Amino acid sequence: MNTPRILEVRKGILKKNDQLARGLRQRFREAGVFVVNLVSSPGAGKTSLLQKSLLVLREQGYHVAALVGDLATENDARRLAQSGAPVRQISTGTTCHLEAEMIGRALKGWSLETLDLLFIENVGNLVCPASYDLGENLRAVLFSVTEGEDKPLKYPTIFNSADVAVLTKMDLADVAGFNRRLALENIQKVRPGMTVLETSARGEQGLTAWLAFLQKQIPVSKTS
Amino acid sequence: MNTPRILEVRKGILKKNDQLARGLRQRFREAGVFVVNLVSSPGAGKTSLLQKSLLVLREQGYHVAALVGDLATENDARRLAQSGAPVRQISTGTTCHLEAEMIGRALKGWSLETLDLLFIENVGNLVCPASYDLGENLRAVLFSVTEGEDKPLKYPTIFNSADVAVLTKMDLADVAGFNRRLALENIQKVRPGMTVLETSARGEQGLTAWLAFLQKQIPVSKTS
Repeated sequence: MNTPRILEVRKGILKKNDQLARGLRQRFREAGVFVVNLVSSPGAGKTSLLQKSLLVLREQGYHVAALVGDLATENDARRLAQSGAPVRQISTGTTCHLEAEMIGRALKGWSLETLDLLFIENVGNLVCPASYDLGENLRAVLFSVTEGEDKPLKYPTIFNSADVAVLTKMDLADVAGFNRRLALENIQKVRPGMTVLETSARGEQGLTAWLAFLQKQIPVSKTS
Repeated sequence: MNTPRILEVRKGILKKNDQLARGLRQRFREAGVFVVNLVSSPGAGKTSLLQKSLLVLREQGYHVAALVGDLATENDARRLAQSGAPVRQISTGTTCHLEAEMIGRALKGWSLETLDLLFIENVGNLVCPASYDLGENLRAVLFSVTEGEDKPLKYPTIFNSADVAVLTKMDLADVAGFNRRLALENIQKVRPGMTVLETSARGEQGLTAWLAFLQKQIPVSKTS
């Protein structure tokens, strides 16, 4: 019987991850940096939303940076670095999520004190990242209008573990036959009271509301 | 140090899965049923393609059935059962893929001998399902035009482990600004010579080609 042993090992990993995440959270607090963990399916638009967010936040004088997780390639880091913000890629190999330990390692040598906002773009996956705390202050789950309205019901854990849901690709809602009412209803079924922002990185729809939502969360000591 | 122990346990699981998958493959061969494992991101259109496929294949006199994997809900099984084909849902809980053992259990009581084609719809995930052989004869990776052309490069293992790639939602290609040439190029980079089918379940584009591709694979003893 393998099962009990596997469970035991998994619990061990998670416990270790939780401890490391606690350490990261403490470090982020001391540095006064607000950390956002973006999770979603592959291709839901995390990198596109982040590209726009980094650009606009920098224009507004915020100090922002990003860590990007992927199994392979450094494509996303290259895309994000065009904003001028410091960006580091974390290659996870065959691992389907980021872990606190990977974040700690990727942050080596960075002076977090100079940052207002740090974005972590997780591996595109609606299952694995749900269980791994990265010490973030806010977890945002992205959900594109082309994925189908049932995703919150089918992946309840990740919606439950997130603080805010961001609908993406709203410019495709009509052609995709997106049922907005049903999608919102399904989010609320899984996570009653959850804040939902509606965006399109291509059309820049909802970008201001998304950034205002983030800016409200930045520690006062930084913005004053 | 947890790492060596985890690796050892994972290898143990995979070895056990491979053994069970071998048993399933033998059973499928003896029953003369052709088994297709559909893998993709969440919301790439596995259920929609399958709905249409089951309907048309049944109209053409084929005996078809489906197993559907999801973390939660029986939505997909309900959608597929409308075709009149036998369908069973496998609830994986927090597991991000189907395993051979789950397939074996779900098939209990089914007389595979009466079937020509059995579809297995995997959990929506571009990472975990890659490593789990389900005893299938064909693995098809679906890839929707709204996900971005870079997905084969970012999730190479699943494209490498698949036998055929199916582009989905081709009716949205223009509005999504899909770069078809680049997507095909990226597939070929990861898996040179891979067959790629272009479909839209909504527009029924490419459905005939997809079904013809499957029909060519059904054991002759069944079709004669």
